[in-house]
Amino acid sequence: MRIAVIGLGLMGASLAQALKGFREARVFGADISESVCTKAVASGVVEEAWTDPSLAIDGADLTIFSVYASQVPAILQKTRAAFKPGSVVSDICGVKNKLYEAIKDLIPESVEYIGLHPMAGKERDGFENADPAIYKNCGMIVCPESGVKPETVEMMLDLSGYVGAARLAVVSPERQDEIIAYTSSLMHIASAGLCLDYHPALTPAFTAGAFRDCTRVADINAPAWAELLMDNRVHTLKWLGKYIDNLEKFRQSLEVEDQSTLQHLLAEAGDKKREILTL
Amino acid sequence: MRIAVIGLGLMGASLAQALKGFREARVFGADISESVCTKAVASGVVEEAWTDPSLAIDGADLTIFSVYASQVPAILQKTRAAFKPGSVVSDICGVKNKLYEAIKDLIPESVEYIGLHPMAGKERDGFENADPAIYKNCGMIVCPESGVKPETVEMMLDLSGYVGAARLAVVSPERQDEIIAYTSSLMHIASAGLCLDYHPALTPAFTAGAFRDCTRVADINAPAWAELLMDNRVHTLKWLGKYIDNLEKFRQSLEVEDQSTLQHLLAEAGDKKREILTL
Repeated sequence: MRIAVIGLGLMGASLAQALKGFREARVFGADISESVCTKAVASGVVEEAWTDPSLAIDGADLTIFSVYASQVPAILQKTRAAFKPGSVVSDICGVKNKLYEAIKDLIPESVEYIGLHPMAGKERDGFENADPAIYKNCGMIVCPESGVKPETVEMMLDLSGYVGAARLAVVSPERQDEIIAYTSSLMHIASAGLCLDYHPALTPAFTAGAFRDCTRVADINAPAWAELLMDNRVHTLKWLGKYIDNLEKFRQSLEVEDQSTLQHLLAEAGDKKREILTL
Repeated sequence: MRIAVIGLGLMGASLAQALKGFREARVFGADISESVCTKAVASGVVEEAWTDPSLAIDGADLTIFSVYASQVPAILQKTRAAFKPGSVVSDICGVKNKLYEAIKDLIPESVEYIGLHPMAGKERDGFENADPAIYKNCGMIVCPESGVKPETVEMMLDLSGYVGAARLAVVSPERQDEIIAYTSSLMHIASAGLCLDYHPALTPAFTAGAFRDCTRVADINAPAWAELLMDNRVHTLKWLGKYIDNLEKFRQSLEVEDQSTLQHLLAEAGDKKREILTL
């Protein structure tokens, strides 16, 4: 088996390394940066790497795009002739439906597409921060369009387990985007929003776990996340709207000094948090 | 030296234990629950404990209230005759100004008041969850009113270091409330708000660090926090208002599909997050 990982940034290079030995696969890579290709081969992340993705895709049984979603269609356009008939193409982008709509007519007919969304990452990106351990114990969402062969779904589930994913889900691209808008998009906006204004007299003595945890993901890759949020804007807007409405309930109870409603809101949030933990 | 800790819940019992040996003090306690008093003595958290706080306060050089802020005035009213002249009275409530206004006329004239706010805690409260380690590496805010003796401030700073605080601040009660409204009150509302509505198809596969961290403190003691937030309502409303305004900026950029503004907002949040980290 041959696997091609297109894009050797944080996610791609970490995945390529984690995939080593999966179904005895040889792992090849491609990256826009010549120096990343050189480093990826030198450090053993991939067997060979090229700046021309067609050379990695040629002969691959599985090709995984780990570039920005917006770059996938153009790369696919240029490389579609290189795909091996009967092979599988995947991606690890965080939003699936818009990407699928953009590429479905570009995927060669004899090639099967199945999306993969690892709920993994870290604050610092780029090849130099790659670490296969980011996939250890992560959640992994496998997103087959209707008509994808069961053995293809099974391969992606096996692959997910192989790289270390501990919690798996199989849902349609549309459904994954809907849920992710809550568990990921909304959380990142909430965290970023908390940092846009901060108290000027703040010193570390005033911070505890609540501050640290609520603002942790605010330091993110702005271009990547702007694209992700925009690609999932309809679902994200829905959840952001609900969130603002809920914050308005807190505001209202404080404004009218209604401590009982405030306590009720907090108790409800606590109950729901415990519900989520037991899902 | 004798120290009296009034209220042996999570915070008080943990503090009593952590204070053992501070300036060779003997530590006594009081709690409304007879069984908590018995357990506190049996487990060595305090030397003796009474349900009547006057018995603990009698002869104490330092009395620390670790009960809800709303309970402090009534206890003080009942126990004021027991205070040793020249002694110090403190509290570990999260909001200072309203409490100070409520008790300033009740504190015996020969007794000095100085507030203390440990930025510590955990999700589960009560005596049975007490653990002196909750104060290890915490932030500690010492809040003297004007006129408090320098050696009293110094004692509280020493005490803070003794129990394990790693980051110290000395500010007026008013100023502490203003800053805490951002670093604590707002964070708890933001986190609780994220749990009031959640996607019904959520499973653990869809959750990663962002979800876990942003919602961590949502499971809180609702009565205690309703009181804290209400006691600090003016400052909390100010920060909650700013937060909602900032979230509206995200909503607006998504609504009009303005990816560049969205990216700018995310970049600004990241920059400010990094600024905060280097304070």
